[in-house]
Amino acid sequence: MEDLKLAVINKENKRTVIDINGIQIGKDFAVIAGPCSVETEEQTIKTALAVKTAGADMLRGGAFKPRTSPYAFQGLGEAGLKILGKARKETGMPIVTEVVDARDVSMVIEYADVIQIGSRNMQNFPLLKEAGRTKKPILLKRGMHSTLSEWLNCAEYILAEGNPNVILCERGIRTFETYTRNTLDLSIIPAAKEITHLPIFADPSHGTGKLSLIEPMTYASVFAGADGIMLEVHIEPEKAMSDADQQLNPNDFAKIMSKIKKLRQSYDSIVGRPAAGVE
Amino acid sequence: MEDLKLAVINKENKRTVIDINGIQIGKDFAVIAGPCSVETEEQTIKTALAVKTAGADMLRGGAFKPRTSPYAFQGLGEAGLKILGKARKETGMPIVTEVVDARDVSMVIEYADVIQIGSRNMQNFPLLKEAGRTKKPILLKRGMHSTLSEWLNCAEYILAEGNPNVILCERGIRTFETYTRNTLDLSIIPAAKEITHLPIFADPSHGTGKLSLIEPMTYASVFAGADGIMLEVHIEPEKAMSDADQQLNPNDFAKIMSKIKKLRQSYDSIVGRPAAGVE
Amino acid sequence: MEDLKLAVINKENKRTVIDINGIQIGKDFAVIAGPCSVETEEQTIKTALAVKTAGADMLRGGAFKPRTSPYAFQGLGEAGLKILGKARKETGMPIVTEVVDARDVSMVIEYADVIQIGSRNMQNFPLLKEAGRTKKPILLKRGMHSTLSEWLNCAEYILAEGNPNVILCERGIRTFETYTRNTLDLSIIPAAKEITHLPIFADPSHGTGKLSLIEPMTYASVFAGADGIMLEVHIEPEKAMSDADQQLNPNDFAKIMSKIKKLRQSYDSIVGRPAAGVE
Amino acid sequence: MEDLKLAVINKENKRTVIDINGIQIGKDFAVIAGPCSVETEEQTIKTALAVKTAGADMLRGGAFKPRTSPYAFQGLGEAGLKILGKARKETGMPIVTEVVDARDVSMVIEYADVIQIGSRNMQNFPLLKEAGRTKKPILLKRGMHSTLSEWLNCAEYILAEGNPNVILCERGIRTFETYTRNTLDLSIIPAAKEITHLPIFADPSHGTGKLSLIEPMTYASVFAGADGIMLEVHIEPEKAMSDADQQLNPNDFAKIMSKIKKLRQSYDSIVGRPAAGVE
Repeated sequence: MEDLKLAVINKENKRTVIDINGIQIGKDFAVIAGPCSVETEEQTIKTALAVKTAGADMLRGGAFKPRTSPYAFQGLGEAGLKILGKARKETGMPIVTEVVDARDVSMVIEYADVIQIGSRNMQNFPLLKEAGRTKKPILLKRGMHSTLSEWLNCAEYILAEGNPNVILCERGIRTFETYTRNTLDLSIIPAAKEITHLPIFADPSHGTGKLSLIEPMTYASVFAGADGIMLEVHIEPEKAMSDADQQLNPNDFAKIMSKIKKLRQSYDSIVGRPAAGVE
Repeated sequence: MEDLKLAVINKENKRTVIDINGIQIGKDFAVIAGPCSVETEEQTIKTALAVKTAGADMLRGGAFKPRTSPYAFQGLGEAGLKILGKARKETGMPIVTEVVDARDVSMVIEYADVIQIGSRNMQNFPLLKEAGRTKKPILLKRGMHSTLSEWLNCAEYILAEGNPNVILCERGIRTFETYTRNTLDLSIIPAAKEITHLPIFADPSHGTGKLSLIEPMTYASVFAGADGIMLEVHIEPEKAMSDADQQLNPNDFAKIMSKIKKLRQSYDSIVGRPAAGVE
Repeated sequence: MEDLKLAVINKENKRTVIDINGIQIGKDFAVIAGPCSVETEEQTIKTALAVKTAGADMLRGGAFKPRTSPYAFQGLGEAGLKILGKARKETGMPIVTEVVDARDVSMVIEYADVIQIGSRNMQNFPLLKEAGRTKKPILLKRGMHSTLSEWLNCAEYILAEGNPNVILCERGIRTFETYTRNTLDLSIIPAAKEITHLPIFADPSHGTGKLSLIEPMTYASVFAGADGIMLEVHIEPEKAMSDADQQLNPNDFAKIMSKIKKLRQSYDSIVGRPAAGVE
Repeated sequence: MEDLKLAVINKENKRTVIDINGIQIGKDFAVIAGPCSVETEEQTIKTALAVKTAGADMLRGGAFKPRTSPYAFQGLGEAGLKILGKARKETGMPIVTEVVDARDVSMVIEYADVIQIGSRNMQNFPLLKEAGRTKKPILLKRGMHSTLSEWLNCAEYILAEGNPNVILCERGIRTFETYTRNTLDLSIIPAAKEITHLPIFADPSHGTGKLSLIEPMTYASVFAGADGIMLEVHIEPEKAMSDADQQLNPNDFAKIMSKIKKLRQSYDSIVGRPAAGVE
């Protein structure tokens, strides 16, 4: 399918491993958890401590929120980044946060360990190029209607600027189904692993948009061969300023985490990595 | 979402269990395997024996094939049904086979233990009604662009005629992705379990259309909470008259079967049924 | 794109013209109008007289209605066909009516001048074959998610049985837009004309599902090069038993008809047939 | 459908008219034409003179090209803008050109009369805000998978910053059809006119991606009620550095222009504005 000259293509049967504070993304299975939006210092740090205790590896939280309506909460901006900085200091957890404007990249990298580029910006080429000029790991979400080929070409934009540290993240595509908010396309995980050496995560929170479906789709993601999972957790989901319907409370998250660990052991002992059979 | 008066809705927190020759569909995890098309007696019986040895519970095989082109192989018709009858006699396996014409239902039920209604016929209402007038279990595949609500209404057509024995089967929906033939929507499995008491299977063969993706998506299906799996297996896939790209050989199928059994034990001990939390 | 051996392909730069009671489908521009469902004799004949007076060429009306829910009105069946027969007698208009069951074809052809095969049955291959064994003109609607290639292959099923009289009808495809019920794909009209010699109609009633959009999309259909238009008209739309939101009243239909006639003159004098440049 | 408080909503039954060098967008019917990419001064000025002679109102041409692959031609950047500036000087035509980076807005407005925001950037909110802080007319293309509601919310981002001069442009949505590159959704034109006071254009070049379909879809766009048309024209299409398959040559464009003028007269005399019946 792909032009074999692209840097994203797995030509030598090796997988990219990205070290983030000792977590080996692409080798270890990793869990990113935290609130949709950074709302207050208390909300962020309490959530951070809760997800850390439950076993999460990295903290997510949005300071810049791309919203359909201009009148919806747009995030705290730099104030939100500073709160994330405090959460990192207090918990030692690496920070994953989204950037939506190429002009903010230099500011965001002061606070973030991983820069997220969201679904709506997958083909925001100036932003991809700016992200490529940093050395920070980039979590690149799939566009809502994008093919694997288009997605990998966007990753190529980052690699072409000199940054090899890209983590793909499937977050659901738009389909005709209305029961779910999006359709989490798990088959893209083994498909991606057939073509590219880049690690790939799944985001069952956005992928389903429905609290009750997050748990089964998390477990299914593990067995589709995902390198990690991204989950939205809020200390008080019912008070969340965005995505209130899809954020787990810390208690439910802890139960899921304990099962993820056991399931990964099953996966390693029964299936063995990689499922996609490239290597 | 659904009209609570529909018979397909799970109102009393009980799940439908369908007994097929001692296999408890909806309670036990079941595997349906066999060729896309019945081509010859030898091909069918050899494949049947191979999948039985590997641990499959039921034999699939198409005698009536809905094909995009009128000039493509349309199946052997009644001669194919007779071959399936012999395969049942020789192996003791229950037979799952598709019917595409309401006029053939009475003939097909003489040979089949489960009648399959395919994706293109999900909204073939006369066929649904005819299937509803039998007592045979009906495997009802989801339409390529259908919502859960539309699908359940089609199951309702069968129940409304007096046949409660419907098994849903997710077989992939059409999306913009071209790397896969369809997109297997695993989130519909826990979604369906939230609403209906009917069992639901996954078909990773049609759902991906790509041999290399069948294995990981089979394992993911188990952990999405599927009640069973349907897989295409051919004694010599490279000689198949239809779907040559997505039929497993018996050897690969046997390897997958042995892992499915272990994974189901993991699922039962770690996740516990049901994942969707309805009961 | 297409296999040049298919009978539907325009290889000799000639277009199929189908004579229906003196109307030259594929040559003259034709308007099919009438109620979604045949409900009563009075409703059908009053509507028939109204659309005839306004200038419609053929009467449509459904006796067999494919409905999402088994509990929705399913049409009057043969009693509906008899009412259509009376309407034909009284008005002299040819009748277009849908058949959904291969077993009903022989009955329907006693009352119908054109047999409609609806969107959900585009790939109901036994029904296509049965329709192909009659000599009646067949109005074949495009499936909601079907490509032009798949559609033409379905027409080929009819031609392969010996019936060359197929009229294609674009009736809207499913997209993510929710403001309209479907998305009327007018580009498929000149696209079809590049490949096939078969005439092609547009159905702005189902294509938009919204009363206010029917008028502009009817005019746009004329200039996309359609050979005709199919419109839902009901003597009292607010009392309709199906599709109440998209049926025109006779008064609005008459206004649209008078503009269609003038617009066709503009089309012929300014654009000239065919727009797609095949001939 | 829409929140009535949004500024884009037509609450007082008046339509936005935007004056661009004497062309009354939203009142007069306007044609924007020119090459996909600005390649050389000669190519741009020759094309500009040709489209002006044929009757185009504005010149389009891309200096910044969003491309799927990072290795595809990305446009000439500021050098391209300077060529457009010369073309404006030489022909007197207003310039429509795309901006893809919020940091380039201040530079682009020195050369452009209308700033285009492309399909991939419809939800690039920082870019929308930056465009909203200028007073330049903004041509906002619809996203490939976007609903009317999402699109209007993006226009609202521009209006909310104080710039009321937004022109919507339908450029085709992604569907399952492969014969066309996109599906030009003409029903969105009367749909938009029911809700918003903003003018709306159609782009049959991108909307179909196929040279032979541009002409009929242009005429259909006029009768769907579009306020104008955007067409790609290249002095030598076969040598174009991008979109070689969908650029008209000046000769064919001139023929289409002469028909557009006559068709608009038919539209005004037979249909009368607006088709959508809001006013």
